[in-house]
Amino acid sequence: MANSKFEYVRGFEQTDALLPNTWIVVRVDGRAFTKMCAVYGFEKPNDRRALDLMNAAAKAVVADLPDITIGYGISDEYSFVFHKSCNLFERRASKLVSTVVSTFTANYVYSWSTYFTSTPLSFPLPTFDGRAVCYPSVQNLRDYLSWRQVDCHINNLYNTTFWALVQLGGASNREAEKALAGTLSADKNEILFSRFHINYNNEPEMFKKGSVIFRDYELVDPDSHRVAEEMDDLAEPVQQSKSQAEKDKKRRSKARVVVEHLDIIKDEFWDRRPWILSGKPGKVPKET
Amino acid sequence: MANSKFEYVRGFEQTDALLPNTWIVVRVDGRAFTKMCAVYGFEKPNDRRALDLMNAAAKAVVADLPDITIGYGISDEYSFVFHKSCNLFERRASKLVSTVVSTFTANYVYSWSTYFTSTPLSFPLPTFDGRAVCYPSVQNLRDYLSWRQVDCHINNLYNTTFWALVQLGGASNREAEKALAGTLSADKNEILFSRFHINYNNEPEMFKKGSVIFRDYELVDPDSHRVAEEMDDLAEPVQQSKSQAEKDKKRRSKARVVVEHLDIIKDEFWDRRPWILSGKPGKVPKET
Amino acid sequence: MANSKFEYVRGFEQTDALLPNTWIVVRVDGRAFTKMCAVYGFEKPNDRRALDLMNAAAKAVVADLPDITIGYGISDEYSFVFHKSCNLFERRASKLVSTVVSTFTANYVYSWSTYFTSTPLSFPLPTFDGRAVCYPSVQNLRDYLSWRQVDCHINNLYNTTFWALVQLGGASNREAEKALAGTLSADKNEILFSRFHINYNNEPEMFKKGSVIFRDYELVDPDSHRVAEEMDDLAEPVQQSKSQAEKDKKRRSKARVVVEHLDIIKDEFWDRRPWILSGKPGKVPKET
Amino acid sequence: MANSKFEYVRGFEQTDALLPNTWIVVRVDGRAFTKMCAVYGFEKPNDRRALDLMNAAAKAVVADLPDITIGYGISDEYSFVFHKSCNLFERRASKLVSTVVSTFTANYVYSWSTYFTSTPLSFPLPTFDGRAVCYPSVQNLRDYLSWRQVDCHINNLYNTTFWALVQLGGASNREAEKALAGTLSADKNEILFSRFHINYNNEPEMFKKGSVIFRDYELVDPDSHRVAEEMDDLAEPVQQSKSQAEKDKKRRSKARVVVEHLDIIKDEFWDRRPWILSGKPGKVPKET
Repeated sequence: MANSKFEYVRGFEQTDALLPNTWIVVRVDGRAFTKMCAVYGFEKPNDRRALDLMNAAAKAVVADLPDITIGYGISDEYSFVFHKSCNLFERRASKLVSTVVSTFTANYVYSWSTYFTSTPLSFPLPTFDGRAVCYPSVQNLRDYLSWRQVDCHINNLYNTTFWALVQLGGASNREAEKALAGTLSADKNEILFSRFHINYNNEPEMFKKGSVIFRDYELVDPDSHRVAEEMDDLAEPVQQSKSQAEKDKKRRSKARVVVEHLDIIKDEFWDRRPWILSGKPGKVPKET
Repeated sequence: MANSKFEYVRGFEQTDALLPNTWIVVRVDGRAFTKMCAVYGFEKPNDRRALDLMNAAAKAVVADLPDITIGYGISDEYSFVFHKSCNLFERRASKLVSTVVSTFTANYVYSWSTYFTSTPLSFPLPTFDGRAVCYPSVQNLRDYLSWRQVDCHINNLYNTTFWALVQLGGASNREAEKALAGTLSADKNEILFSRFHINYNNEPEMFKKGSVIFRDYELVDPDSHRVAEEMDDLAEPVQQSKSQAEKDKKRRSKARVVVEHLDIIKDEFWDRRPWILSGKPGKVPKET
Repeated sequence: MANSKFEYVRGFEQTDALLPNTWIVVRVDGRAFTKMCAVYGFEKPNDRRALDLMNAAAKAVVADLPDITIGYGISDEYSFVFHKSCNLFERRASKLVSTVVSTFTANYVYSWSTYFTSTPLSFPLPTFDGRAVCYPSVQNLRDYLSWRQVDCHINNLYNTTFWALVQLGGASNREAEKALAGTLSADKNEILFSRFHINYNNEPEMFKKGSVIFRDYELVDPDSHRVAEEMDDLAEPVQQSKSQAEKDKKRRSKARVVVEHLDIIKDEFWDRRPWILSGKPGKVPKET
Repeated sequence: MANSKFEYVRGFEQTDALLPNTWIVVRVDGRAFTKMCAVYGFEKPNDRRALDLMNAAAKAVVADLPDITIGYGISDEYSFVFHKSCNLFERRASKLVSTVVSTFTANYVYSWSTYFTSTPLSFPLPTFDGRAVCYPSVQNLRDYLSWRQVDCHINNLYNTTFWALVQLGGASNREAEKALAGTLSADKNEILFSRFHINYNNEPEMFKKGSVIFRDYELVDPDSHRVAEEMDDLAEPVQQSKSQAEKDKKRRSKARVVVEHLDIIKDEFWDRRPWILSGKPGKVPKET
């Protein structure tokens, strides 16, 4: 029984390699998480256990895939950025997306009981979908991440005010919605403060800023690098000797991966952590 | 703080809708399963627990996504076929692939302890990647599935003989490999029989044929349908009233999903189960 | 001076191979032909010279590319159908589209003076754009061509009536437009007949039906073939010995290419010319 | 007769929009030009009439499409660069490629008799194919163009020496080929000089450097601009008010398009002509 008769079907596979020398963002989104929230009783407006679990799953993804240079998560979504010089899986979209989504899902399900200690997981199981988008320049990439962080702020301010009206103010969902229709940020801050004595600025950073995941090295003097320009100048996908690239990859995979809640819109975050854009490992901080 | 300044980044997302009126196969493959096998002590040549777990995860995928008309699995891979008229997620490749992979992974991790009762899951966690391929005609689709089933046979015969030589015959891996180099099927059958008194035909069907997943209805008279031709004639993606389509989908989602180990290369499998190609629910079998 | 330093740029080319075993339609459309019509004084509603020139250019395309099995043209557009088994240029979309568009353009410009004997070509030169679309089944393909022929009918009936009102009835363009707003086919037929004594049925077939280009063989008994089904059954791109394929291609390239004005919506056209769908050369008609 | 029944076929068209904020290179290549050379008696190693005709066709393309910022041609190929901010045809690959190829072909055929005054065009007509490739950074784009110019040099030195051996040295094609096998540039220069008294440096610039097409403005002080960096920083496709963009486009379309034979590998070409990368019209040179 020869296989050759059927093997022609392999010719129907179409390549989906992403354009070289561009930043690849793989975004993972929770499927039907509104229902998940209801079934598992997630707290409103933010469930710390759920966010911690998202962060744990995302950390595992970044640790597993050293080509990822930064991750950013809010609510039930997480974005992972593959460095523009990355050639993992020959940059095939389906391989990159499915690997990230599967690793994220496996860790989310596996670590559920660590974070939801009194709510055992059953059906429906949490699942995620994903997609890949390419960004040609550093500015495009930073604008993408800024877009997500602005979204985080807008949604969190809205949700915080909405649930204050409902949980503390006794409003129905419908009434709360109506009360917020057409309000600006300042209005919502005002409602929170005057009616519920909540100073939005004092809300937890994780809720206001989302979560940033990256490898941890010593911060540098902000003026010491021009890494964005260097990266935009980067042309040839393979820039350095293979052995150096392998060494860097190994060092990256050994670095401590941290989750923080910082402003990633302003320059400072990027200027002090040039390794995120350069992909070159920084100086390992002294243990304390 | 207006979001509009950054929102332009959405324009970089490129559509990946798959060609209408074609059969979509999403194949899921275990990542680094050679290592998984070693870490978790999978039995050779086939670990029934691992295959049962694959089948359980695949059943959950088929049950979750009524647009899937058949699944076929061997070893650490599973193929899922979306009907050619399917319009789920507007046929976007990344959504289809990531949803299947995530649902498969979630169920695999969640159900691990049911099948590996004495081997707790830890790290590395099992993960899978995936891809989507379109097949225009019924014959193409059947040839794809035949290709996988032939592969199953070839690999299983090889592995059964290889591990007989090693486990029963005391050969080293290298010696077994050498002994099998250049042998035909008949030679392997002969080795199994004459040296180890194993009649390959008596090996479990699951190992020899792989696993087929589909919805269970009453078998029909093989001559009563010309469903392959009808399907190839199918032109317009939307063929029937929406309400009828919804009704069919509901009935499909209620049907019992079964895992069997059958020959799917010959016509008989398809002739007696026209609903697999037609997507029209069959007659629910009487309970016994 | 080594070239290798720059050659990495070749890696940025992305493949655009079209799905195998599908019918490829390349449609060519005139660019800015409204302006062309004005500059070169095309007659309204149909300029026979311009249509004859379109047909001459299209005939040259079909004669040049034996993989094209049928062409269909109306107004300033032409569709060319590559057989589903075609593997020309490895089915790369950009090669197929650009070759068709360039061959069409070259012939259109070159043959201009043959058809516009008293209107020399100058600037702006006529140019065309193009695109490729895949159709999986014979029915899809026929529906595509039917769509174009129905469009031809609808547009021609409208334009014939519109220009009758303007040229014979003395209406302004605006008045004619208004008079036709909301009218059905029957209304337009009635206007033509009662006001201008024009029986639309007697209008030239080329205007009413568009132009069909194909290779000319002896018509067959309509019941003698089931070619649509055979084509949909076709699975493997390469079905026959290479030498037979080459022979067929050679015979196709020698066949007489004809332009006719026939109904291609009804079955008869296809039933009597099985070679159009099968790609197998028919019987060369006896010279008369 | 309703059209709606068939109109579903439009849903099979798949989008092929190219990634925003990247430089689009459309390259046009002569089809079967070896045969063309033979049929029309092109002179070897370079036929000035043929190159002038290529340049005339390319100038027409650049003049017609103000989104093209530079063109570069050698032999029977021409590359056209659309600015990274270009949104022509929503960046659809097939529209961009087919429009360039058709405009090039139309002008080539139309202008044939101007350059081949004593060799009338007949069949086979000259035709061209094309493709589009995206380059994310200025360096990638310049490397692409450098790659083509290095190719021009390598091919021209080889061809010049080859045809000197044949035409002046009386060698057969085979003998010339053999004589050049394994030779370096220096060897070829030496053969030309010592055997045929040809100083390769004195060969015409058009043959050695190829042809560069761009809009002509006053050269600037090389240090006055950092346009490459500015362009790589460019993020949002639409950077400026629409009216300003329209004004720039109008000015570009009025600028004189020139064909020159310059080194485009070194920085100087780009530093003195910042408008090529910036897309901002420069200062119109005073008429002399």
